[in-house]
Amino acid sequence: MRIVEVFKTVPAQTLETTLVSAQQAINEVATSIIENANLGHEFVLNNTVREGNGVVRIKDGCYRILEERFDWYREKPLHAFKKRGGPIDAYKEFPGEFAAPFRVGLEFETGNVSSAHRAMNKLLVGIKSEELDMGMLMLPMKTMYDYLTGRTANYEEIEPYFTLLKDVPFIVFGFAPDRYDANAPFLPKGKEGMSKRSIKKWPPGDNRNNKKAKQR
Amino acid sequence: MRIVEVFKTVPAQTLETTLVSAQQAINEVATSIIENANLGHEFVLNNTVREGNGVVRIKDGCYRILEERFDWYREKPLHAFKKRGGPIDAYKEFPGEFAAPFRVGLEFETGNVSSAHRAMNKLLVGIKSEELDMGMLMLPMKTMYDYLTGRTANYEEIEPYFTLLKDVPFIVFGFAPDRYDANAPFLPKGKEGMSKRSIKKWPPGDNRNNKKAKQR
Repeated sequence: MRIVEVFKTVPAQTLETTLVSAQQAINEVATSIIENANLGHEFVLNNTVREGNGVVRIKDGCYRILEERFDWYREKPLHAFKKRGGPIDAYKEFPGEFAAPFRVGLEFETGNVSSAHRAMNKLLVGIKSEELDMGMLMLPMKTMYDYLTGRTANYEEIEPYFTLLKDVPFIVFGFAPDRYDANAPFLPKGKEGMSKRSIKKWPPGDNRNNKKAKQR
Repeated sequence: MRIVEVFKTVPAQTLETTLVSAQQAINEVATSIIENANLGHEFVLNNTVREGNGVVRIKDGCYRILEERFDWYREKPLHAFKKRGGPIDAYKEFPGEFAAPFRVGLEFETGNVSSAHRAMNKLLVGIKSEELDMGMLMLPMKTMYDYLTGRTANYEEIEPYFTLLKDVPFIVFGFAPDRYDANAPFLPKGKEGMSKRSIKKWPPGDNRNNKKAKQR
């Protein structure tokens, strides 16, 4: 896919220029977008039917790259929520250049626009409660949104709210397919047609235990 | 109804103790909850059927008091959104004790929990863009929510996010009915059974013009 827009707060810019871990985190997430492909090295979207494509395949493409190539984890709970809120979608701890690890949370928004507000707020709570050092959100651009299942949140729709992010290290990516093609296969809606895969859940210890259990 | 919980940030507390307008705004909104009644002087909810009651009647009861008794307005657009976001639900400008008026925005959340995030963020944008001096949000308590139409946001559900409000003047009210009664009439769902009334839309000038037009 293509990264069309990037919103980067000043604190995020500062981290990027001063901290290798921050740079690496941004690169990994950017790579997961750019290398997400469904046809050769490209992501091609059928744009003949409004709301014709599901969004799960797009999300899973990015997450696979993050989990398998870059060792990100999924479903990191926040202690601040005391089990009353859902986990952070994707999470990675980069080895600390100083004492502590550099902790990054990511949400890929596939729900409607109000869900995008919740996703953004969840990352903000993570940062304010000092459980995350940086937050990232990714969303389809409006041009792409027209061909995705109904009311998926888009970048432009949430853009007027970016002012709420400006004091914390936060990055929002707006993406679109590499190209549109009337002959491309439609992306399945919901989870149909998705090959089953076990996600890499946080914390890492649990996964190691799971793998051991399976190997026996 | 009853006010069961009030979350008040430190900046809101400071305004309340130093500014008569802020005190008055808080009192008016609190009154609109307390005096919202459907049976005599009480608000009585039928609690025999889960999700058995609509929520529009509750919202309209509060808004009627705010508009008719306290001269609040509805649907105040924010300039920060440049027509890309919806208006603030309810709004009032109190005569300034100093030079400028004291401007208060209110949202009554009847959508699902992610809509409550949007409502909260909308008020925050209004405050950050200096179009509002204080924001208020009201929500049913979880005990009441069980008997309201599916997935209505509730106070407890959004409470873990109140940390995002703490630097700005913001108040959240959690309300519940005065009592439950198995014989109380169910509240209509959607707008059915609601008497039509014209809301007092912001800005005031437009309404005065409307009234004059009608009187002729």
